[in-house]
Amino acid sequence: MTEVDTDLMKKLVSLCKRLGFVYQSGEIYGGLQSSWDYGPLGVELKKNIENSWWDFTVRTRTNVVGMDSAIITHPDVWKASGHLSHFHDPMVDCLQCKSRFRQDHVEGDVCPECGGELTEPREFGLMLKTQMGALENDSATVYLRPETCQPIFVNFKNVVNALRLRLPFGIAQMGKAFRNEITARNFIFRSREFEQMEMEFFCLPEESGTWFTYWLEERMAWYTDRLGILRDNLRFREHDDSELAHYADGCTDIEYRFPFATDGWGELEGVANRTDFDLTAHMEQSGQDLSFQNQVENTKIVPYVIETSGGLGRTLLAVLLDAYREEEIEGRTRVVLGLHRDLAPIKAAILPLSKKLSENAAKVEELLRPHFPVRFDVTGSIGKRYRRMDEAGTPYCITYDFESLEDNSVTIRERDSLGQVRVPIDSLVNEMTKLLRDGWPAENPGT
Amino acid sequence: MTEVDTDLMKKLVSLCKRLGFVYQSGEIYGGLQSSWDYGPLGVELKKNIENSWWDFTVRTRTNVVGMDSAIITHPDVWKASGHLSHFHDPMVDCLQCKSRFRQDHVEGDVCPECGGELTEPREFGLMLKTQMGALENDSATVYLRPETCQPIFVNFKNVVNALRLRLPFGIAQMGKAFRNEITARNFIFRSREFEQMEMEFFCLPEESGTWFTYWLEERMAWYTDRLGILRDNLRFREHDDSELAHYADGCTDIEYRFPFATDGWGELEGVANRTDFDLTAHMEQSGQDLSFQNQVENTKIVPYVIETSGGLGRTLLAVLLDAYREEEIEGRTRVVLGLHRDLAPIKAAILPLSKKLSENAAKVEELLRPHFPVRFDVTGSIGKRYRRMDEAGTPYCITYDFESLEDNSVTIRERDSLGQVRVPIDSLVNEMTKLLRDGWPAENPGT
Repeated sequence: MTEVDTDLMKKLVSLCKRLGFVYQSGEIYGGLQSSWDYGPLGVELKKNIENSWWDFTVRTRTNVVGMDSAIITHPDVWKASGHLSHFHDPMVDCLQCKSRFRQDHVEGDVCPECGGELTEPREFGLMLKTQMGALENDSATVYLRPETCQPIFVNFKNVVNALRLRLPFGIAQMGKAFRNEITARNFIFRSREFEQMEMEFFCLPEESGTWFTYWLEERMAWYTDRLGILRDNLRFREHDDSELAHYADGCTDIEYRFPFATDGWGELEGVANRTDFDLTAHMEQSGQDLSFQNQVENTKIVPYVIETSGGLGRTLLAVLLDAYREEEIEGRTRVVLGLHRDLAPIKAAILPLSKKLSENAAKVEELLRPHFPVRFDVTGSIGKRYRRMDEAGTPYCITYDFESLEDNSVTIRERDSLGQVRVPIDSLVNEMTKLLRDGWPAENPGT
Repeated sequence: MTEVDTDLMKKLVSLCKRLGFVYQSGEIYGGLQSSWDYGPLGVELKKNIENSWWDFTVRTRTNVVGMDSAIITHPDVWKASGHLSHFHDPMVDCLQCKSRFRQDHVEGDVCPECGGELTEPREFGLMLKTQMGALENDSATVYLRPETCQPIFVNFKNVVNALRLRLPFGIAQMGKAFRNEITARNFIFRSREFEQMEMEFFCLPEESGTWFTYWLEERMAWYTDRLGILRDNLRFREHDDSELAHYADGCTDIEYRFPFATDGWGELEGVANRTDFDLTAHMEQSGQDLSFQNQVENTKIVPYVIETSGGLGRTLLAVLLDAYREEEIEGRTRVVLGLHRDLAPIKAAILPLSKKLSENAAKVEELLRPHFPVRFDVTGSIGKRYRRMDEAGTPYCITYDFESLEDNSVTIRERDSLGQVRVPIDSLVNEMTKLLRDGWPAENPGT
């Protein structure tokens, strides 16, 4: 990690706490390691990303449906999937400085921190388990799901029957997953409790290559077009044979240029051809027939699966990093979170120029509030309040000044261009709706 | 439970599986006891209820903000809250039939099932715990949160500082919570993994009575006005002194007329005056100052808290029960899920009268899909398809018939009144937007 990059992460973590995006969990008790709570702005940003994914993946498609399974899962699910026997990380410790590493993160057998000698690798289970049931003799060991995709396979038949689905179709779900990560770190990039956004797309085996390419392009389009992440900060990276999971016939990651990543890039999402591995495994473990009636040829087949599997926390981090910038304006540094207007937690701030105008400006807030999330702010100079909203990623500030009392109009100021436009309060809802849908028009130049 | 009521629950559970609302979790493995997965229709209904709550509680108010904390929580949080020492259920077993009951659910010391003798009560911990951290010697026992409200108190200062909040204000969160319930039962009414919707409203102690009344009315309004639950099936029930929690200065439940409840009513939500109990407890446990600067009088106070605490699963169950009805029409039974149009998973179904019209009807679906969740259905007679959509709670069916080829119009049929109206495809998006916003106009009578 270069010095500049460490700096960026520090600034971002500090901004996240100061503005109410992300806090360390249990901070007043010294904090729970690599566990994070989302504050008032963070939860709105998170919801906006979730809704964007659900809308893009499920609601606007004829052939993808959603589901939402329990976190605590029947143990046989993880027998079938191979997690109970295979989901371990090999770990090595440095005999000298006592640092601990995942073996596959270390090249050679020498500590990357101090050059000391490393222990032989030891295996550590990555699933979190708990006991459910009231009494010792009827309590059962159950697992917190380490991924959201397996319950999709387990419910495959129920979903197909309920909706009488025909190939190809997808089943999507998002939600919490838990892994006892050894190297949980880098803020919300890797934590033991995290949120996945996954979709399993079932298709004929011979069409799986085509769908793999289709979904790879679709997923990239989501990051760039819906979340507004710069294409140059994203790349595809194909897995080579050595890192390909045993069940996969091909896997390509979508990576973001994270400042802490050793080679400059870190995974946001994996798109994989999981073949018929999972359905076959659950058929064998459960003894149930999960094959699909191919109505055209009247044969039974086990479909292939193209999986898209993204992480919500790391996507949110990429969105924040990509949006963060510092600018020199009139000799002062302005920090801006240039969030896409669809993602911004606050769509507009209503700022009375003076406290004397508060009552009238509050009426403008009341007018807008039923339509989109707005914030009223009267504390501090107008310049300070603009900067606060720039840091929070708020795309529009609406200033109520003394002239507003005369002309019943307000000034809309855009965050990035600093362009301004005067708008009658009567048409403010319409104007804001248009600005939030289409963005700031090029013909309104900055000041 | 009366015979009729058992029947209603059985029918509803069966409908939920058949149509894709709710499945037993891990069904192909024999099922995980009282654990439930939401299918394609269930997840949409759930999201619609969640969004309605968030919109009503957070987004449309100037003085309530949201947050979203981790499920796995620092153990000291549960020390301070008293859960570690007090959160146990006393249980009794029948010596004769071996049934198990929560002691407070049994009157007298005789088994309510068979009249047998009961054991002395024994205490059972209600929190689920797990081990986090990779190695034995640095792993820690941590708890899955049994409620979503405590992390709000823990983050109180961070939230206040980030948003410079002034009394009175609320902090809301919804999400999963886990309790090792002994008597998990009644479908999704009581399960060990469940979802809460909670808000803590901080105010001056002397104003807590007024805010208690305010929020009680607000919460009732949500169930009736936003979710469309019949007022007659809801009631307020004030806790008497014997059942009042040690921290509460008053608590009133909002109850629904559940068919399985022994006295006819079951809790949906509790509204409580928690006084300054929680903030004070966390101040003592953490040694941090969580008092609030009262800027008017320039004194420090620990605010009182009015809590509204509802369950998502049981709300969803109440919505389904309230919506379920059977009607005789032309000598045949019609099952209808009369869901409020805001909650319906599918807003409209597009039904070609004949398979020959599929291609043209599909264009109507394409037209509507960007605007709201729609479903295309071509399989079976038109009567069967109407009934399928009635059962799914779909408020509008749009039929494309042979005349549509000529007049470029379609027929909209409303679920409850069975009223119909012919609409040009050109104005269909506008017409549907209006119908979904305002409901079916009274001047369009049923057939």
